[in-house]
Amino acid sequence: MARNTQVTADHNAPPVTQILAEFVATHPGYLAGGWSATVDHEAHRTFMNWLGCAVGAAHHEAADAALAAVNMLQPAAQATLPGRSEKVDMASAALINGITSHTFDFDDTHLKTIIHPAGPVASAVMALAEHTGASGRALIDALVIGIDVSCRVGNAMYPDHYDRGWHITGSTGTLGAAAACARLLGLDTQKTAMALGIAASQPVGMREQFGTMTKPFHPGAAARAGLMSALLASQGFTASPKALEAPRGMMQTVSTKNDWTEITHELGQRFEISFNSYKPFACGIVIHPSIDACAQLRAQGVTPEQIDRIELKVHSLVLELTGKKEPADGLQAKFSVYHGCAAGLTFGFAAEDEFSDEVVNRPDMVALRRKVVATVDDAIDEASADVTAVLLDGRRVHVFVEHAIGSLQNPMSDAQLDAKFHGLSDPVLGADKTTDLIAACWSVSQAGDVRALAALTQP
Amino acid sequence: MARNTQVTADHNAPPVTQILAEFVATHPGYLAGGWSATVDHEAHRTFMNWLGCAVGAAHHEAADAALAAVNMLQPAAQATLPGRSEKVDMASAALINGITSHTFDFDDTHLKTIIHPAGPVASAVMALAEHTGASGRALIDALVIGIDVSCRVGNAMYPDHYDRGWHITGSTGTLGAAAACARLLGLDTQKTAMALGIAASQPVGMREQFGTMTKPFHPGAAARAGLMSALLASQGFTASPKALEAPRGMMQTVSTKNDWTEITHELGQRFEISFNSYKPFACGIVIHPSIDACAQLRAQGVTPEQIDRIELKVHSLVLELTGKKEPADGLQAKFSVYHGCAAGLTFGFAAEDEFSDEVVNRPDMVALRRKVVATVDDAIDEASADVTAVLLDGRRVHVFVEHAIGSLQNPMSDAQLDAKFHGLSDPVLGADKTTDLIAACWSVSQAGDVRALAALTQP
Repeated sequence: MARNTQVTADHNAPPVTQILAEFVATHPGYLAGGWSATVDHEAHRTFMNWLGCAVGAAHHEAADAALAAVNMLQPAAQATLPGRSEKVDMASAALINGITSHTFDFDDTHLKTIIHPAGPVASAVMALAEHTGASGRALIDALVIGIDVSCRVGNAMYPDHYDRGWHITGSTGTLGAAAACARLLGLDTQKTAMALGIAASQPVGMREQFGTMTKPFHPGAAARAGLMSALLASQGFTASPKALEAPRGMMQTVSTKNDWTEITHELGQRFEISFNSYKPFACGIVIHPSIDACAQLRAQGVTPEQIDRIELKVHSLVLELTGKKEPADGLQAKFSVYHGCAAGLTFGFAAEDEFSDEVVNRPDMVALRRKVVATVDDAIDEASADVTAVLLDGRRVHVFVEHAIGSLQNPMSDAQLDAKFHGLSDPVLGADKTTDLIAACWSVSQAGDVRALAALTQP
Repeated sequence: MARNTQVTADHNAPPVTQILAEFVATHPGYLAGGWSATVDHEAHRTFMNWLGCAVGAAHHEAADAALAAVNMLQPAAQATLPGRSEKVDMASAALINGITSHTFDFDDTHLKTIIHPAGPVASAVMALAEHTGASGRALIDALVIGIDVSCRVGNAMYPDHYDRGWHITGSTGTLGAAAACARLLGLDTQKTAMALGIAASQPVGMREQFGTMTKPFHPGAAARAGLMSALLASQGFTASPKALEAPRGMMQTVSTKNDWTEITHELGQRFEISFNSYKPFACGIVIHPSIDACAQLRAQGVTPEQIDRIELKVHSLVLELTGKKEPADGLQAKFSVYHGCAAGLTFGFAAEDEFSDEVVNRPDMVALRRKVVATVDDAIDEASADVTAVLLDGRRVHVFVEHAIGSLQNPMSDAQLDAKFHGLSDPVLGADKTTDLIAACWSVSQAGDVRALAALTQP
């Protein structure tokens, strides 16, 4: 049989599995000068944003279905599900909290790769930290390290890997979760390499799932798989020490582009969590500039009643990812730039309520989104949007958004993150408990044991 | 940013997710005429061979490590680990039994794709059947259906998918396990499609892991993921109904070759389990012809002491997969055609003991395998081997094996499978209990509840 047994093969890759393992196992933590106060503050912002998203979606039907399935295993009560009263084993908690944190598409974004890094990493390491009674400092250290691993691997493979069909959050998230859990468990370099190796065989997630519960399942499954990879390695389970970089290893198998220097360059000096961003709007990041632009039109006095049509010019990726013209429900609306524009012009923002089934099916919203005429212009960056409101009286009002609110160039403030957290958590935990929880998040690295914070997340 | 957003894209794929879901949910079982007695007997052979392998490796260090990690989750005692006294939750049992069944590389092989189909499928559905008290008939029906799904998807993607780096047993096994469990749970077509869809986001396994514990981890992780996908779907969790075939679905993401007719042609008439084979030797299938040839040399009176060199001519894939010249231990020796030849000539066969660390490091074995001179000849089929023993006295003894024992053309008999089972199980369960267990396997489809058979697998 004629066979092409060398579809891809770079035999000269640097030993990145070993390099990352040594970094994870031996890089000094924050208190030993491992990274700057600015980086460490960003880690707190990432943790808090993750937790708010998880609490907010705690009772979504996706969480209910996942918990019902997990309960068929009669899990031990090891770890908390933020926003719920039930406890499950730590691996199942990693799964479910990863699902809830991404259910509203409201979590963090590493913009260079469109990875949502906290879902896999924080969900895994928080469950492990709670069950083992780890300190908040160890938790945050592990979060910084784990996110660096998943985002660096993402940098190396992006965009080919993503373009091929992988939901890069899940496919790199398993590695980040394994790294964070290996760090928290204090595994040595050799066992950490095994944890990364076991994780490398478990990339999760296809983009075809966008718009279904399996999209948020991806960070959940990645969190679970990463945690289990670290537990397996801790017990002596073995994997290839070249599992990431070998010709038949993970990275060459799932991506035709692998820029190894993205993993090795400034490792331990530049931290990818520094480039994390947080969404003001509860939907895919590529819709944000369009919502922001329409919200600016509203601020300029344009009302839905005045609209003849909205001319929207965006990069082709925006329509590929969020081109649903007639979303049937809230979940689909998160992948509809048309609904995003209608919400921006109608409400001036778009949190979870503005993506509810009820709002999405309101006749005025349906009518308004049908007036959006989207065209592709690849001269416009993915992070920008060009919007012109053509009014019934013939006037044209133009807004160009280069960097939407929530971008690196225009980030949400700590106070805005507090407000976002309240918006997500107040309906679940109440405003008072939410206030306490927010305070606990900002000071989590001073907590001797993360279980007090975990307890605050229960209703 | 210039982007190639269409690395692969076949927008005209038939709806194979839906087609397979309907087949899984509605095809008649054996008693209703769904397949022939010959097919059904092969399913019993597949089940028995799987169970023997799992029992045999029950106390391997890989099983110990995996169970130690699982025990950190404090699992409920829902399902048996054949060969061990402990019980764990059914998903963890699927994981561990998938690992043990593949640890010795002694399990079944679907030769067209090199898929080892029972590991993922039987491990998942047996754990579910035991916990739910299903009948043996339902178990065997689900096994036939599940293996058909994984092998048909494998047929569609092979060989490109495998050549790219995927361990096809794990990457298609998740789908087979999900299908079998959906069938056993009695899910309708729509929910079965969701189960397949959730599973489609979780392909497991890279070939770089061969020679480490993570290789047998692949069928285990696939079994676990498939079972959980079915449980999630049963509770209303959703996925894309085109998760397999869409341009950004699983199959186009992980393979550049997708022959959809391999899935649809004669579906429900031809069953891939008919083409399953069982190994007489405890190693990768591609070494079998070489071992068989050397065993034939031994039968002709050639002894190790006479050897100057062994000239071995094989297909390039044989050396790519099993080219380890100096295996350091038993696990590595399973990927050494050199050791395989030495064992064949020395012992006339190569069961698990002949791949022990002790035998692998014996000076006479080291010396003999260094006398094997392997050369690539792609005119020779992967399933064949051409061996010439060049003796110290100058004589040349030639053996050509076209189809090794254990191949479809030269299958093991039922009695040989019994003997293989005894060889694996007697040291673990004792000969008497093993005899009872073998009888229970051959009659499993008459059992009203599989739990009696499960109990027999405990020491």
